[in-house]
Amino acid sequence: MNLDSVNRPIAIVDEDICRRNIEIMVRKASKAGVKFRPHFKTHQSAEIGNWFRDHDSDGITVSTPEMAAYFMNDGWKNITIAFPFYHSQINQINGLLAKSADLRLFVNNLDCVSFLDSKLNRPVKIYIEIDAGYNRTGVPSDDFTALDMLVKKIGKSKKCTFHGFYVHDGRTYRAGSGNEIKNIIKPSFEALKKLKEDFAGAELSVGDTPSCSTLDTFSPATEISPGNFVFYDLMQVNIGSCSLKDVAYFLICPIAESNHSPSRVVIHGGAVHFSKDYITVGNTPSFGLAFSRESMSSNLVQTNGHHIRALSQEHGTIPISNQQDFDSLKSRDQVLVCPVHSCLSANLFRNYVTTNGRIINKRVLS
Amino acid sequence: MNLDSVNRPIAIVDEDICRRNIEIMVRKASKAGVKFRPHFKTHQSAEIGNWFRDHDSDGITVSTPEMAAYFMNDGWKNITIAFPFYHSQINQINGLLAKSADLRLFVNNLDCVSFLDSKLNRPVKIYIEIDAGYNRTGVPSDDFTALDMLVKKIGKSKKCTFHGFYVHDGRTYRAGSGNEIKNIIKPSFEALKKLKEDFAGAELSVGDTPSCSTLDTFSPATEISPGNFVFYDLMQVNIGSCSLKDVAYFLICPIAESNHSPSRVVIHGGAVHFSKDYITVGNTPSFGLAFSRESMSSNLVQTNGHHIRALSQEHGTIPISNQQDFDSLKSRDQVLVCPVHSCLSANLFRNYVTTNGRIINKRVLS
Repeated sequence: MNLDSVNRPIAIVDEDICRRNIEIMVRKASKAGVKFRPHFKTHQSAEIGNWFRDHDSDGITVSTPEMAAYFMNDGWKNITIAFPFYHSQINQINGLLAKSADLRLFVNNLDCVSFLDSKLNRPVKIYIEIDAGYNRTGVPSDDFTALDMLVKKIGKSKKCTFHGFYVHDGRTYRAGSGNEIKNIIKPSFEALKKLKEDFAGAELSVGDTPSCSTLDTFSPATEISPGNFVFYDLMQVNIGSCSLKDVAYFLICPIAESNHSPSRVVIHGGAVHFSKDYITVGNTPSFGLAFSRESMSSNLVQTNGHHIRALSQEHGTIPISNQQDFDSLKSRDQVLVCPVHSCLSANLFRNYVTTNGRIINKRVLS
Repeated sequence: MNLDSVNRPIAIVDEDICRRNIEIMVRKASKAGVKFRPHFKTHQSAEIGNWFRDHDSDGITVSTPEMAAYFMNDGWKNITIAFPFYHSQINQINGLLAKSADLRLFVNNLDCVSFLDSKLNRPVKIYIEIDAGYNRTGVPSDDFTALDMLVKKIGKSKKCTFHGFYVHDGRTYRAGSGNEIKNIIKPSFEALKKLKEDFAGAELSVGDTPSCSTLDTFSPATEISPGNFVFYDLMQVNIGSCSLKDVAYFLICPIAESNHSPSRVVIHGGAVHFSKDYITVGNTPSFGLAFSRESMSSNLVQTNGHHIRALSQEHGTIPISNQQDFDSLKSRDQVLVCPVHSCLSANLFRNYVTTNGRIINKRVLS
C-alpha cells in the first residue's frame, strides 16, 4: 500500500518497534525468573503472534473462546482465557478441547466448578482470579475462607486442575508515574505473597502492562501476561509505562480541512478509528496526539505534537493556536496520530499496514 | 439464534420499533414538506436500508466512499457523502460514478473545486457545508464572501453542479431538553434563512437527530438527513430526542459474575461492544443502562434500570446498592443493555439479531 496517498484512516504497525517491545519484555521476564504468557487481545493478529515465536513462550492469554479459536487455528495450543468462565461458553470450550487445546480458565466460584465438572469433555487447568481492590471480578484477596473452599473444591474435581492465582489491578492504568504504579500494585503482590504461603506451588500471575513495564522484579509472582506493551499508546506514555519512541501503533489520517477562528485542522479519523477513550491533558480531554506524517521515520519525541480535542464518528478536530505550526500542518495531506488506547483502536481495523506499506492480517470483531 | 443462551454479547435490533422510528420520521418530513435523505452510517445494513424502501425516499446519506459502495451494491444510486471531500478519495469517487452513482459531495473550498474539475470522469452535485458555530468543518455561515466565491466557482465548473447547503450542528448532542435543542439549532436555521435569500433554489439540509426528532417544522430547510433516529440510544433519551420505548438497539450481555463490597454485577460487555462513549448521570459516567432480560418484551420505561459505571475492554461493571435489585439481577444469566451511543456500538458488531433471533447482516469496518 502506498502510504503517501491513503484514502481513509490506516492503522500502522512499526514492526521494528513492536519486535523490540516484545524482546524487551521477554528478556525482562527471563531475567526476573518469571514465565511469560503474553495477552494477545491487543494485536489480535496471527502474524504478530508469530513474532513471539522467535522467543520461547509458555503459551498465550486471550479474552474469549473466539479469540482462542483464532490463535489455535495458527498453531497455539497452550491458552489462558482471561475472563471469568460463564455457563453458556461450555460448547465453545469443549470445541476448543476437542482440537487439543491446553486450556486455562478463570473460575471464581464453587458453582462454576460443579458445572464444569459435569459438562467438560476433557480436563482444563484453573486460575482463580483474585481481587486486591480493583473491585471488578475475582475473589477478594483477603477472603481466605472462600479461596480455600474453592481450591479444595477444584482439588476434588475430575475435570478441573487447580493451576494458580491471577491478579489484574486495572487501577495502575490511572497512575501518573512509576512510583504511583508501584504503590497501586503493592496490595496485589502482598496478596500473592500470602497465597504463596498457603498454596505452595500455585502459579502466581500478574497481568497489567503498567506494572510489567515499570517493575524489574515480580516476586512472588511466577508469571506475567501483559498485552498492551506490544503496541503501547498515549495512555501508557501518560502513565509512565513507556515513552513515545516505544509506541509501535499509529494511525495515518488524511487531513479533511483546515479552518480559522479558532484555528484547527480537521482530520478523517474519528471515534470509529480511535475509540472514544481519552486522557486528560491540561484539564481537557485528548483523544490522540497528532504529528506531521514525516515524523513516522524520525524520533517522535523530537517533534511537536498537537492533541485531538474533539472527536465525532468520522471527524477529529486538532486546535492549533500557534500560527507557524498551523501553517505547517495545514499544508500537508496527512497527519500521523498516536492514539490514546491502542487495544481499542486496533480492534476497529480490518488489518494493519507496516511502515513499509505491507498488509498485516488480523482478527476482525466477533 | 437462541437468545436465551448467547455465548457472547449480542447486538439486538427490535424490528418493530426500528420500522416505527423510520415511519415516524418519514411522516414528519412529509408533513413538514421537506425531503428525507436518511443517514445510513448508524445501521450500516443493507437489510435495514430496505426497510426505508417501503417509503419513498429521495436518496441516502453516508460517511465515506466505502459506505457508498456498500449501499450501491444493494441498489442505492442517489447518495450524499456527508464528509468533506479530500484529494486522495478521487479514485474511489470515479469508481462509484463509473457504476452510475448520482453523487453529492461536500466541497468547502475553492481548491477542491479546481481539483474535482480536473480529475472527475463524470459530474457530481455539490453541497457546501456551513458552520453555524459548531467549529468543526464547513464555511462559517456568516462568511458570505467566501460562500459567494465558492458558489460562483462551482457555477463555472464543468463537472460540479451546485446543489445546496448542509449544516450539522453537533452541539445539539450536548442538550438536555427540547427547548435547549431549539436554542442551539436556532443559528443554523437563521443562517439557512439568509442563504435562501441570497442563493434561491439551493437545497438547505439539516442533519442532526436531536433537531430532526424534536422539531415539527424545519423552514427554511428543504431536506433532513438524520441517522441515529433509526435506533436511538441512551444519549438521545438523555438529550430529550426520544424516550426509552423508542430505542430499537440493545445488547444482550451474559452475566459473568456478581460480587459484594461493593455489590455489583459484572457483565461480558465492554468497550469493544459499547464503545467508551458515556453520558453523565448523577455526576458519574454511565456507559449504558442495564435491565433484566425479560424487559425486552415489555415496556422498558416501567422497569428499573441500573447504570454501567465502569467499562474495560471486555468487562462492564454495574454497581447495585439495593439488595432486592441485586439479588434479582445476580440470579439471571443475562442482562439487556441500552447503550449510550448506538452508532458507535453498532459499528463494533459483525451483524445484528432481531428479538426473534433472526440474523441481520451489516457492513463490517473499513
